Amino acid sequence: MDLDLLARGTGEWLRGSGTDADIVISSRLRVARNLADFPFCMRSSEIDRREIERTLKQCAETVPMGRAMHYLEVSRLSSLDRQFLVERHLISREHAAAEGCRGAAVSDDEDVSLMFNEEDHLRIQVIKSGFSLKECWDLVDQIDTQIEARVRYAFDEEFGYLTACPTNVGTGVRASVMLHLPALAMTKQIDKVFRALQKIHLAVRGLYGEGSQASGDFYQISNNVTLGRTERELIGDIEVVVPQIVDYERRVRKELVKESKQTIHDRVSRAYGILRAAQTITSEETMHLLSSVRLGVNLKLIEDVPIGTVNDLFIHTQPAHLQKLQGQELDSEKRNVARAAYLRLRLSNPDSSRN
Amino acid sequence: MDLDLLARGTGEWLRGSGTDADIVISSRLRVARNLADFPFCMRSSEIDRREIERTLKQCAETVPMGRAMHYLEVSRLSSLDRQFLVERHLISREHAAAEGCRGAAVSDDEDVSLMFNEEDHLRIQVIKSGFSLKECWDLVDQIDTQIEARVRYAFDEEFGYLTACPTNVGTGVRASVMLHLPALAMTKQIDKVFRALQKIHLAVRGLYGEGSQASGDFYQISNNVTLGRTERELIGDIEVVVPQIVDYERRVRKELVKESKQTIHDRVSRAYGILRAAQTITSEETMHLLSSVRLGVNLKLIEDVPIGTVNDLFIHTQPAHLQKLQGQELDSEKRNVARAAYLRLRLSNPDSSRN
Repeated sequence: MDLDLLARGTGEWLRGSGTDADIVISSRLRVARNLADFPFCMRSSEIDRREIERTLKQCAETVPMGRAMHYLEVSRLSSLDRQFLVERHLISREHAAAEGCRGAAVSDDEDVSLMFNEEDHLRIQVIKSGFSLKECWDLVDQIDTQIEARVRYAFDEEFGYLTACPTNVGTGVRASVMLHLPALAMTKQIDKVFRALQKIHLAVRGLYGEGSQASGDFYQISNNVTLGRTERELIGDIEVVVPQIVDYERRVRKELVKESKQTIHDRVSRAYGILRAAQTITSEETMHLLSSVRLGVNLKLIEDVPIGTVNDLFIHTQPAHLQKLQGQELDSEKRNVARAAYLRLRLSNPDSSRN
Repeated sequence: MDLDLLARGTGEWLRGSGTDADIVISSRLRVARNLADFPFCMRSSEIDRREIERTLKQCAETVPMGRAMHYLEVSRLSSLDRQFLVERHLISREHAAAEGCRGAAVSDDEDVSLMFNEEDHLRIQVIKSGFSLKECWDLVDQIDTQIEARVRYAFDEEFGYLTACPTNVGTGVRASVMLHLPALAMTKQIDKVFRALQKIHLAVRGLYGEGSQASGDFYQISNNVTLGRTERELIGDIEVVVPQIVDYERRVRKELVKESKQTIHDRVSRAYGILRAAQTITSEETMHLLSSVRLGVNLKLIEDVPIGTVNDLFIHTQPAHLQKLQGQELDSEKRNVARAAYLRLRLSNPDSSRN
């Protein structure tokens, strides 16, 4: 797989299409699986790991997934390439940082990705734009079922699927949606949402998962519990709560426009102006300003940028993406200059394709 | 004189031409004169004032000034029109705020203006773009000499010309230059300039004279003393010191570009971006950002705005100008919206004429 080409392109999940795509950026579903005949990764030898990867890779190659899959030997990638895959949500930060034999497989459209020898032997992830957890689950389930027909998973009648970390035992399912909630953040009502989600055992994280800041007003909501409930129940929990948050965000946006349209218009317009003018800009400021621009596009206060371009820029202005696009490693100061140049280019002609 | 038409146009002194016009916006020279046969304004009756104005107006009409003069009955103007003339530097704030019979005469090009019944019976002002005090003085002197041939000025062999305020006694001359010193302000070196000027009895004021803030990094330097020295000596003092300040500002600009070009470029570029994007903006922020843009144009970091347009915008975005341009009185909030719209219009097509 040509990662330079991948860097210039964009994943299906960033297209800004699908249900409630103004607020729900993407839906993601992953399952954690382990082979019964091998110890968990943390206890496995390098020989075990090679055998685990060989087995799963071979198996995945024979499973008809309806899309071309590309295999990556993560252990052989440069740290820049690994960081790039993390920014692209194709592998986890842990998988990038780990040592020893490990791999990944990514579909052309970037909707399906597999990780071999991450925390668990196998992780299957499907990510799609908009609010589409059911669609994600159907595809994950289909791939999982076909792989299960070819290998023996570690499974316990009482507990369900066994995983390296007890929080994943049972279904091994983590369902999550990435929400863009600038109005709730701006009006400080986001804390109410957090408290409500905590009560029903849902977790809130930033754009890059556990421990990452909610920069750009992105909030990833996912289930904490995997045990004792069926996959459909877990997904159902999120499917019930997300439309409520979406409604809340929409209501606050409407109020903002009604009560202080000038202020909002000024804010989003200035953010757009700065992004098109800056000569050097940090990632943090970029996320912050892009969040306002995204709100502006959704409120039709900014008319000449497609939402897909804005979604894209959140990812393409991340450090590893910038360096891939420039074809060289850059220190933080040079990245800030390159980021500003890239933003000016993309936003001066926002309808243009990335390629 | 059609003040609405005047509001849409611009004075010669804003054209950004002339010596050192990158830093010296304009040079101004005025003399204060009183008629020997009348008491000073502060002690004169309304009948006196009418007679003073009639005499001086008639006299000025017969003096060949080489340019068409327009007479304004300041006492009959709306407060908006009076404020507009102050913003345009054609009459003083005191003249606008005073009561009773008083007038002004303004030339087509706005380089010559006369005030009748201001603090003194007559004030003759010439203002020109760039560093051109000598030229200003020659014109003031020529007009003054011709008026003096027709009326009897209050003059004392020992003290010279007598004026209402003792600070003007002697020559009655105030010479001033308006400097734009963004680099000295940015690097906090402007205080050194202030201290040096104080020592040689020169005053530093803001864009709108006494008591006004130095917003937009504009500094007006003028003589404090009018007594005991000839006009040429007073002008000479300023003519010696201004090139030194100009050199200092240029040197600091060069250093800034050399040592932190990226930072400066980012600053001026963002300022330009915000001015072209804002939906509401205060006068203060406008001055601040325009100052950066002006620096950017002079450093050739911004290429598509003529310096005359930037000079112009400092004046045309003032409250009374905005209201004249909109053809209606506006409260502060509406002015901020109108100001932003006007800036977007002028800067989206910066080469376009104002008219």
